[in-house]
Amino acid sequence: MKNRYSVILGNLGNTCDRFLPSGYKEVVPKLEMIHQAAAIPGIEGIELVGTWDITEANAGEIDGWLNDAGLACVSIIPDLFSQRRWGLGSLSAKSAETRRAALEECRSVARIARQIGCPLINLWLGQDGYDYPLTADYRSQRAYLAENIHLIASEFPEIRFALEYKPKEPRNFSFQARAADTLLMAKETGLANVGVCIDVGHAFMAGENVAESAVLLQHHGEKLFHMHFNDNYRSWDDDMIVGSVHWVEYVELLHWLRETGYAGWYSMDQYPYREDGAAAVRESVAFLQNVEALLTETRQSELRDLIAAGDATATTRYARRTFLAKL
Amino acid sequence: MKNRYSVILGNLGNTCDRFLPSGYKEVVPKLEMIHQAAAIPGIEGIELVGTWDITEANAGEIDGWLNDAGLACVSIIPDLFSQRRWGLGSLSAKSAETRRAALEECRSVARIARQIGCPLINLWLGQDGYDYPLTADYRSQRAYLAENIHLIASEFPEIRFALEYKPKEPRNFSFQARAADTLLMAKETGLANVGVCIDVGHAFMAGENVAESAVLLQHHGEKLFHMHFNDNYRSWDDDMIVGSVHWVEYVELLHWLRETGYAGWYSMDQYPYREDGAAAVRESVAFLQNVEALLTETRQSELRDLIAAGDATATTRYARRTFLAKL
Amino acid sequence: MKNRYSVILGNLGNTCDRFLPSGYKEVVPKLEMIHQAAAIPGIEGIELVGTWDITEANAGEIDGWLNDAGLACVSIIPDLFSQRRWGLGSLSAKSAETRRAALEECRSVARIARQIGCPLINLWLGQDGYDYPLTADYRSQRAYLAENIHLIASEFPEIRFALEYKPKEPRNFSFQARAADTLLMAKETGLANVGVCIDVGHAFMAGENVAESAVLLQHHGEKLFHMHFNDNYRSWDDDMIVGSVHWVEYVELLHWLRETGYAGWYSMDQYPYREDGAAAVRESVAFLQNVEALLTETRQSELRDLIAAGDATATTRYARRTFLAKL
Amino acid sequence: MKNRYSVILGNLGNTCDRFLPSGYKEVVPKLEMIHQAAAIPGIEGIELVGTWDITEANAGEIDGWLNDAGLACVSIIPDLFSQRRWGLGSLSAKSAETRRAALEECRSVARIARQIGCPLINLWLGQDGYDYPLTADYRSQRAYLAENIHLIASEFPEIRFALEYKPKEPRNFSFQARAADTLLMAKETGLANVGVCIDVGHAFMAGENVAESAVLLQHHGEKLFHMHFNDNYRSWDDDMIVGSVHWVEYVELLHWLRETGYAGWYSMDQYPYREDGAAAVRESVAFLQNVEALLTETRQSELRDLIAAGDATATTRYARRTFLAKL
Repeated sequence: MKNRYSVILGNLGNTCDRFLPSGYKEVVPKLEMIHQAAAIPGIEGIELVGTWDITEANAGEIDGWLNDAGLACVSIIPDLFSQRRWGLGSLSAKSAETRRAALEECRSVARIARQIGCPLINLWLGQDGYDYPLTADYRSQRAYLAENIHLIASEFPEIRFALEYKPKEPRNFSFQARAADTLLMAKETGLANVGVCIDVGHAFMAGENVAESAVLLQHHGEKLFHMHFNDNYRSWDDDMIVGSVHWVEYVELLHWLRETGYAGWYSMDQYPYREDGAAAVRESVAFLQNVEALLTETRQSELRDLIAAGDATATTRYARRTFLAKL
Repeated sequence: MKNRYSVILGNLGNTCDRFLPSGYKEVVPKLEMIHQAAAIPGIEGIELVGTWDITEANAGEIDGWLNDAGLACVSIIPDLFSQRRWGLGSLSAKSAETRRAALEECRSVARIARQIGCPLINLWLGQDGYDYPLTADYRSQRAYLAENIHLIASEFPEIRFALEYKPKEPRNFSFQARAADTLLMAKETGLANVGVCIDVGHAFMAGENVAESAVLLQHHGEKLFHMHFNDNYRSWDDDMIVGSVHWVEYVELLHWLRETGYAGWYSMDQYPYREDGAAAVRESVAFLQNVEALLTETRQSELRDLIAAGDATATTRYARRTFLAKL
Repeated sequence: MKNRYSVILGNLGNTCDRFLPSGYKEVVPKLEMIHQAAAIPGIEGIELVGTWDITEANAGEIDGWLNDAGLACVSIIPDLFSQRRWGLGSLSAKSAETRRAALEECRSVARIARQIGCPLINLWLGQDGYDYPLTADYRSQRAYLAENIHLIASEFPEIRFALEYKPKEPRNFSFQARAADTLLMAKETGLANVGVCIDVGHAFMAGENVAESAVLLQHHGEKLFHMHFNDNYRSWDDDMIVGSVHWVEYVELLHWLRETGYAGWYSMDQYPYREDGAAAVRESVAFLQNVEALLTETRQSELRDLIAAGDATATTRYARRTFLAKL
Repeated sequence: MKNRYSVILGNLGNTCDRFLPSGYKEVVPKLEMIHQAAAIPGIEGIELVGTWDITEANAGEIDGWLNDAGLACVSIIPDLFSQRRWGLGSLSAKSAETRRAALEECRSVARIARQIGCPLINLWLGQDGYDYPLTADYRSQRAYLAENIHLIASEFPEIRFALEYKPKEPRNFSFQARAADTLLMAKETGLANVGVCIDVGHAFMAGENVAESAVLLQHHGEKLFHMHFNDNYRSWDDDMIVGSVHWVEYVELLHWLRETGYAGWYSMDQYPYREDGAAAVRESVAFLQNVEALLTETRQSELRDLIAAGDATATTRYARRTFLAKL
């Protein structure tokens, strides 16, 4: 079964940081980003961000654009992180009013998803966390989170909700920080339609071995709903082109995604600060497709043997001979 | 309720590393280490390491020494990390024979615990992990771990088993790496007598906020069985004197340990490479007792207010005025 | 001699990040920020950012505002990081035209400094670096940097130029990353008016011991021109309130700043994302003043003895008894 | 010009850590290690550790063994890190007696080098550093270091002394931590025969881009005397097989080593804790030889163009197409 590749639409747009909030590049009109995405070999789907890309008002139109471009709507990401009102948190905020507003935002996005037939809502709760010691209530705020995720997911049982974890940024500590605590929260809801999204870069940041995290999530009731791909130097969410720093770990990841029956999307989530967005995404997909192609049935069988043997020198020899070019 | 302080006996002994395996200091006879520990103000208990400190053969004698010194045996730590046979893992090893031997080691330690009335076995599975990609079977090896922990804990229902996590060292990746994955494993056993031990330094290494991890464990059925204290520079298990680098996070930790009803020991687990062991432990206990004393009922109430308010400037002002000395 | 405290004016303004570029707070009018700064106990000086705060056009007016508020202009920071044209670097850019423009920007700022009698230009070259392997010319680009720093500093020999290092952000790798490489560049110019600025948080990020870096810079011809203060969790430039995470290292730093005759400013450089800026800066200054007050002549003499002895347990005991509050 | 590969003899021996000081493997007789090294394709040289491998007493014999095996003695590493007397430092120790002893150790090793015609002494001063704040005298101890390095190097002007840096381990902070501070010290001696050794893993730990560090050292008078190769996960000195984690950065490194005229050895410095030492070293050399073979004149020219262009997507595309295998 071939991997299906997608990309978060915004990857193709303008980029900024705290030093240059107006952006390093130009704003790209939405329709143009969609066309750029469609033109990337391998890309068959798009993730949209609520309010940024799609609203209840324009859902039909955006859906039409995607259909025309031959792209599936892979997920919608509620914007619970780029509005000032979420600055101190959204679903876990201390303010009941903020939590209610965040729930409404989720409901709105869920209605859109229902309307256009998008099967997945990817919940990255970037502002839900804290920055300083003795400023967060780990008990009540985590309870709010669990309660509200349960609420929204039970209201839309036909939609899958993937909780995306990230240890840090924009908060110094995120409540949904790592694979296992996020899985715990998903399981706490007791709902089959709540799972987890692994962002490879976030897992690197967390010190995790991504493949191991994927296996853990699949072990616990196939809770791995979604994957975001990028690369980094392990200490920060550099959001770089896949394969620009690491290599063998993607081989291991793609191998275990297959072994554990992951049937979801392989979605690009990068932040090409200074690079052409479409070109950067293209390179990421090309790298993953290259790895995918090298992972034949035979090679996967050989990897199983290597894993069983557990001999690092044999494994590195195999990896070098199989995945590194020869003269 | 006053905190009860203990120490791992070996903290008072010789130290070594891969460059100086023969040790930086002198070997200290066991009885002398026990006396040193007993002489540290605040120390009321000792953690012993199986085979190193106590065996089925000498259990009675060691128990007598502890009693004579007025020290409780807080936990026994099975030695599943300092014998060559555990080099590739113990309870999760690929070799069924090794796993059986590791289980026997645990049974032996459990029998000792039963014999001398020690209520806790602290399982730090340091060798259970892996070093390279594509050398570990994350599915089967984690299953072995879960199965064997279940086995040993169900055989000794009157003893509590605390799973101590650590992201790294001696393996590049430990299977029991962080609070949540270790909690998941504890819950998987379905046994009330399996919980988790937080080592503060290991939590720092993992990028966790220790207080938050403690709250998480207590939230999930009071699974925080044990605490190990030390300090570090956050990127490695430096095993330093408590309070030598950080300060406010210990205040937050001790506050939440009380809030969530933690009634276990506050145990020192340091590695005073070049310092006098007893002196180093003494300083750690003194620091924690200092914080404990400053955390009066009134102050805890004030901390609750600060936490509820979530204003970092108010919190840091309070911390400075309350916990930092004035001229 | 009392420490003189200052703050970068922008610390009191709006904050943003790549997720919320429009900002977490409100824009604060410049004059109001100046008044807020002047009202912070201990603050006697301001650092301004070229183009943001001061231009050749309004220099007289801004200077007047500072004088009226009783504040010295401690430094001007050329804006070589928050304009799109610097996106690929400024003084080290591959484009000769960009380098020329960056030099002109520096000249403009230097003229302003000359005009208002500001003695220091703080050069933080945030965009001068690279993100991916095999995309930067480490030879020529470093040469451009050295050449242009030499150029600007030799054109304005009465002004001091402090090169501020930072390992990362906004680029994945900065050319001026750590104390020693930045010192090397300063020395390469052969000019007495080129030195280094240590940002405490940047040093933490770099894995440095800040005090040691300060001593190194002072040893090499008193090249420590300027200090920026903040705190973080060591892995990222969290730009937090001083003393909110660490404590003893500020004691060590302030001690050695005195020992090595540092006579410059103790300037706050924070990014209070969600906190009231003035309140956050107030807390940082208060913390440092608290440490300064505790560092009496007697205590400094005691610290010298402790340093000479090198006994970690004696040092931590002293630190606890001297700098931590007692009940 | 072909790269010359060597290995530190001990890479082939037993390994240990602080949990298993007796070792994970078996002690391998020295002659056998030499034969194993000679049998590794590509290995033409050996680095020896003073006292461990070679003494003034057995120098002739060891030299004979190397000659018989067709191996050059690439360097001798004075053992200033694995004896208890160096526990608090060697050349920088507070104790004058210890410093004298360390100097004598260096002289002994230098005499051996002179005797057998070994051109390089690799000084890794692992114990020279500190662990806690306010326990080290950054002024005097650094002065001792500089003074003693100058002393030994001036006494043996025909031998080259490479200062090998490492941020951490066994000390929490090493005095010779990063490329630039170590280069500064080398330059401070004013001696042509004092330079620097980059250990790739140590550079990764330090957050450096290794190629950039190499260029910096070569820029400052071709002070890059030696290279040690291994891989890691960037946060610790995991001492893994080259290419087991990273890939493109070795391409960049080998490219720049050539560009800047590095004519020294490409030496393996790994710690194969649980792997067969010779097999691990074999894999590392094979990986580097693979990269070396792919770096033809044409490709290096293409890399120069890519570096000049600075387009990350073009660079990653080229890297993928050139260095990653295709189906």
